[in-house]
Amino acid sequence: MARREFIFSTLKSIFRKYGYAPIETPAMERLSTLTGKYGEEGDRLIFRVLNNGDFLKDANKAGFDYAAERASQKLIPLVSEKAMRYDLTVPFARLVVTHQHELVFPFRRYQVQPVWRGDSPQAGRYREFYQCDCDVIGSNSLLLDAELAAIYDEAFAALGFPGVSLLLNNRKVLSGMAEVAGDAAWVTNICMAIDKLDKIGEEKVRAELAQRGVPESGITQVFDILAFQGSNAEKLAFLKEKFASSEIGRKGVAEMEEMLGIVDQFGLTCAEPIFDLSLARGLDYYTGTIYEVKAKGIQFGSIGGGGRYDNLTGIFGLPNMSGVGISFGADRIYDVMEKLNLFSDLSQTGTRVLITNLGGESFTASLQLLTRLRKVGVATELFPDQDKLGKQFRYADRKGIAFAVVIGETELAEGKLNLKNMKTGEQQMLTADQLIEFLNA
Amino acid sequence: MARREFIFSTLKSIFRKYGYAPIETPAMERLSTLTGKYGEEGDRLIFRVLNNGDFLKDANKAGFDYAAERASQKLIPLVSEKAMRYDLTVPFARLVVTHQHELVFPFRRYQVQPVWRGDSPQAGRYREFYQCDCDVIGSNSLLLDAELAAIYDEAFAALGFPGVSLLLNNRKVLSGMAEVAGDAAWVTNICMAIDKLDKIGEEKVRAELAQRGVPESGITQVFDILAFQGSNAEKLAFLKEKFASSEIGRKGVAEMEEMLGIVDQFGLTCAEPIFDLSLARGLDYYTGTIYEVKAKGIQFGSIGGGGRYDNLTGIFGLPNMSGVGISFGADRIYDVMEKLNLFSDLSQTGTRVLITNLGGESFTASLQLLTRLRKVGVATELFPDQDKLGKQFRYADRKGIAFAVVIGETELAEGKLNLKNMKTGEQQMLTADQLIEFLNA
Repeated sequence: MARREFIFSTLKSIFRKYGYAPIETPAMERLSTLTGKYGEEGDRLIFRVLNNGDFLKDANKAGFDYAAERASQKLIPLVSEKAMRYDLTVPFARLVVTHQHELVFPFRRYQVQPVWRGDSPQAGRYREFYQCDCDVIGSNSLLLDAELAAIYDEAFAALGFPGVSLLLNNRKVLSGMAEVAGDAAWVTNICMAIDKLDKIGEEKVRAELAQRGVPESGITQVFDILAFQGSNAEKLAFLKEKFASSEIGRKGVAEMEEMLGIVDQFGLTCAEPIFDLSLARGLDYYTGTIYEVKAKGIQFGSIGGGGRYDNLTGIFGLPNMSGVGISFGADRIYDVMEKLNLFSDLSQTGTRVLITNLGGESFTASLQLLTRLRKVGVATELFPDQDKLGKQFRYADRKGIAFAVVIGETELAEGKLNLKNMKTGEQQMLTADQLIEFLNA
Repeated sequence: MARREFIFSTLKSIFRKYGYAPIETPAMERLSTLTGKYGEEGDRLIFRVLNNGDFLKDANKAGFDYAAERASQKLIPLVSEKAMRYDLTVPFARLVVTHQHELVFPFRRYQVQPVWRGDSPQAGRYREFYQCDCDVIGSNSLLLDAELAAIYDEAFAALGFPGVSLLLNNRKVLSGMAEVAGDAAWVTNICMAIDKLDKIGEEKVRAELAQRGVPESGITQVFDILAFQGSNAEKLAFLKEKFASSEIGRKGVAEMEEMLGIVDQFGLTCAEPIFDLSLARGLDYYTGTIYEVKAKGIQFGSIGGGGRYDNLTGIFGLPNMSGVGISFGADRIYDVMEKLNLFSDLSQTGTRVLITNLGGESFTASLQLLTRLRKVGVATELFPDQDKLGKQFRYADRKGIAFAVVIGETELAEGKLNLKNMKTGEQQMLTADQLIEFLNA
């Protein structure tokens, strides 16, 4: 928990520095807001909340029949008006539409909240996890796309990552690829297929494309493009030529060039921007820039991703709002940080000092020391009961408290305290002032 | 949102300094964990979550009949195994019991999470709000009770409160009062009645006590005690005499004396500890210290409260775990801070500087300035589009951004920038270094 709090508070302070404001949406949305947005499989995984009170009585005759027929799916809308947040994107789009007249556009927001998905339809299992999104909506300026790249850079640097690959592409480049292959409309099929390149390999992707109706010549074109190796600048030059006959392709290349130019001026230090022609991220609603982040030095898959979408709020009746957003995969970031041992450098977040409780005069001196240490910001506890010292040390040990203080008769007489390093067992006699100096060192 | 985040992050950092560790529990608990814990009214307000999948098919024959009979309450346990968190206390007790063999006792935790209660049984209304609790369980040391008083003190001081009244009492003192009135078992009735003293006045409380079977002589005893005016020390002395015949009363007085003595040594600066003989907080599960906090200088009711409980985990099969905890009423604290104008002193949390976008060469200089300002921690935005200056200023105005920067031709030529104070309209020419100095001032 303390570690996750560290990740989130690091990210939040960066979001704010870039002008993004925190928002939260309620855990429950109207069921109708959520259904139909996540595909058939997604719909099944949404948690529905029963209407309070006598929900069956309030259901109409049809509901009664559905119940008698055991037609669960038909009964749901009659006894359940609310459902639990399934992601942060749909509630955000709903919020933008609801508050469109109060919000100032371009509207920058970040949101860190749990979402809920029913893992398995049969059992009583349930799953809750955090999403962490940062989006700006209401402008198609590529400065915003570039800034999100800078946020990724600063975020992973602040979390202590030695380096990340920031894979970038543009949906219009993929459309150009499809057009060069024969038909711009094939872009969805091409995206879905090359998305699996890592998993199933070139041969199977070729087979899938053929099966989806892309002719052999088109498939060859696609893999010619994907096979191109070179720097970002070389890729831009290569594609300009390739897309001589594709207007949308050239538009995509121009967008990439402009964005990469701004990213360059930001001067990233941790994230290496890589124009990755095979990056597609399957999602059909991206219309411009596409992002994906992978940690360097470890095989772990994506720890972040996002993209530009031109019509996120269209489903709620507000068309033509272009936006761009990124996600941080908090659970995966946590796992990578653990594997790369990045948490060990963190300042300890739990209690640092346990003052033992010997009662009597020692207790009074201990109370004074406790107050002083907390005043200078050191997380300190005084053991609440006058138990055996061994038990008190064991408590410190089990809680991972680094130091224990004993104020016995000798120490009282000398106006000092005994400091024990719980890891090494080393002990030293110090005054309170020396202890504070020692702890700050 | 930004203000609420300020409140929570202030509280959390204090909790940690006192050795309390953050925990979170899932939003959904087993329905059976929650039902029966909040009284009949509470049970009705718990949100139930429908089982995923074909919930009616999985319900047994009885469920089918209940549906046909429209017997909602009987059907619920058959189609809903999960319910949403109603408070933080019950899930905490459940967690302590579940993890009793891994936890280190005394176990100190804080928890800041939303809870859900159905406001009205008929409509589709719903309500979500945050609770903020800090508890320690597994020791009956009064040091812990005193420390929580110190946490209240430090928390309200850090939030900028000029002063709060920290009302303190002890359930055993109330039991003593009941015993002196005639029967220790009357304590629940006496608590429930004197809890209303503020609202309905002495006369009606006397009537209620009489109706609940307390004889006239007993009622006189109760009000004799409540009428006593004096310092905390004078109240202790007065009660020692009054409780000559009540062992539990004397125990309560001794506990109060010990706790107040430790509180005294902590040296509170913002919270004034007041031994309030009429403080009862209705809740039957408190067994020792009782807390309530009220802001000074404003009539607002309670902004925090808590107490010691000897048997919180008993309902889940783990008896004899004494604990003590306090709550912060986040919504009410927010309201009081707004009314007392305590937020105005906060450092601004949103964007401080908007750099306007004039395109071309100016854009490049703007990008450099943007990067520099963010590097030194100033929340800055560069307007994403090259719109009319008036529109860009309007954006800054509507977002409450304090300063706007213009880098026009003159400024470019001189290597300077024009800084506009959005409130006063005042403008000045500065170098980037001067701007940074100005913003840090």
